[in-house]
Amino acid sequence: MWVYEEVVNGQKLTEIINTQHENIKYLPGYKLPENIVAVPDIVEAVKGATVLVFVVPHQFIRNLCKQMKSAISKRCRGISLIKGIDFNESGPLLITDIIKSELNIPISELNIPMCALSGANIANEIAAEKFCETTIGYENQEDGELMKELFHDDMFRVGLVKDVPGVQVCGALKNVIALGAGFCDALEMGNNTKSALMRIGLIEMQRFAKKYYSNVKLETFMESCGVADLITTCYGGRNRKCAEAFITTKKPWHVLEEELLNGQKLQGTTTAKDVYLTLKKDNALEEFPHMVTIYRIAFEGLPVERIVLDI
Amino acid sequence: MWVYEEVVNGQKLTEIINTQHENIKYLPGYKLPENIVAVPDIVEAVKGATVLVFVVPHQFIRNLCKQMKSAISKRCRGISLIKGIDFNESGPLLITDIIKSELNIPISELNIPMCALSGANIANEIAAEKFCETTIGYENQEDGELMKELFHDDMFRVGLVKDVPGVQVCGALKNVIALGAGFCDALEMGNNTKSALMRIGLIEMQRFAKKYYSNVKLETFMESCGVADLITTCYGGRNRKCAEAFITTKKPWHVLEEELLNGQKLQGTTTAKDVYLTLKKDNALEEFPHMVTIYRIAFEGLPVERIVLDI
Repeated sequence: MWVYEEVVNGQKLTEIINTQHENIKYLPGYKLPENIVAVPDIVEAVKGATVLVFVVPHQFIRNLCKQMKSAISKRCRGISLIKGIDFNESGPLLITDIIKSELNIPISELNIPMCALSGANIANEIAAEKFCETTIGYENQEDGELMKELFHDDMFRVGLVKDVPGVQVCGALKNVIALGAGFCDALEMGNNTKSALMRIGLIEMQRFAKKYYSNVKLETFMESCGVADLITTCYGGRNRKCAEAFITTKKPWHVLEEELLNGQKLQGTTTAKDVYLTLKKDNALEEFPHMVTIYRIAFEGLPVERIVLDI
Repeated sequence: MWVYEEVVNGQKLTEIINTQHENIKYLPGYKLPENIVAVPDIVEAVKGATVLVFVVPHQFIRNLCKQMKSAISKRCRGISLIKGIDFNESGPLLITDIIKSELNIPISELNIPMCALSGANIANEIAAEKFCETTIGYENQEDGELMKELFHDDMFRVGLVKDVPGVQVCGALKNVIALGAGFCDALEMGNNTKSALMRIGLIEMQRFAKKYYSNVKLETFMESCGVADLITTCYGGRNRKCAEAFITTKKPWHVLEEELLNGQKLQGTTTAKDVYLTLKKDNALEEFPHMVTIYRIAFEGLPVERIVLDI
């Protein structure tokens, strides 16, 4: 397991993991199996690997792939557990596509097949072995089944869908919808309104996925990565919490990030902005009234009451 | 508007409604429009009506239809707002089908077309004009559009689906799934687990609907009557509340109904039993592990931990 090297309590994090078998910084309180070895050198970590599991903050992925490139085996396949998608001037970019394009050297020589995993998967609940589900999206059935074999467990149930983009779009856009849920909580409109906004959000997630990835499937939104993760995020979740506070305290986003998230960044606000800019460029704002309203409340001072009026 | 006559504070409820324009017993605190007139005689109430809106507890529907029968106009159509379905020895029975079969006299002379309305629609939130959605299921497009015209409003948005059974099965079965959500809450398993059980419940609702009504549509479960009402019921809702208390207090259902619901009956427990008996008769218990587990925890003393192990 490659680990970004940092010093924690005067000791290297990889050494702590390899001696104490615990990641005391990012998952304190849970013992890791002893056969998990932390390796600080990414080239060494990936050498000879036949399955790569990507689970890093998404802004680091391009640079890491560049470093790994020379050491990737030709028989290798990968799975991304990274939540979120990226955007450039031409529209949304899947993390799996970024990984594929960074690693393919040239495409004829190595075309790494990629799966994506996403679901209602809060990390410490999983570590505590509380029951949950997840969804793996695959391109080839064989890869999907291999990944299921690796991840599936009585307490961590894997559902398979032939829909790599659908799984990833769900993981990213649910954070935008959670901002709307937080705005709604601040208005104290009750259960009818909140579940209506979540449902409308789910439909817009689906519409967005279909618009940019034509092979996306309706059923994916009924999987853990869709409706279940949306529910988890709109009831718990930091995006919901900060969005509620954004209305009730009137503090700006960066202050809320510092006060409520210990300086960590919100994904929902960034994605809301990217989605808005992409839709604007594509003259498609009208097809996504709920996500557009969320953006406008978050960044353009639109009164929060519009959350129910502009859809 | 037909109103079952009862005496409230020494005065007839119909008189109270017609003079004070408020249903002080069932919706206190909200003024009704003055053109709503309460009529205690059902034959008088339905005479000449071209649209009948059925909204009574479902156990009274047969008897009421028998009384109305003679006064029904040939140009009449109806919509049922009754949540729940009925069961007999041969399986589930839709309320709309009960109404149709009770009113058709004989079928060649009068075949009343029926729609069904259901959604995340807690009554006092609607009365307070808080935004919500609802779903109307229709058989004929024309009837659906007429009903939408009658019910739709900026704060009460109507979605139309050509799926009368789907809408009604959702309204009934979500109460069973809410029992499971309450059991899960009692276990304090966290968000991942609860949303996983809700999702699995949604899939079983869909499977049940498809099994007994072949023309049910997948999309109906993405409407307000499906996913949104399920969320509302699994987070608020009396079935959830009593199910949690059933585990934490170990009191029997009838005591919880008295203590927590003022003697009102739980719909989820009755439906869980009916669903179980129907599936057992049809040798289909294995296709519905979650609903079967809920029944067994509720009525056969199965340990609540099985809620995540038996699916």
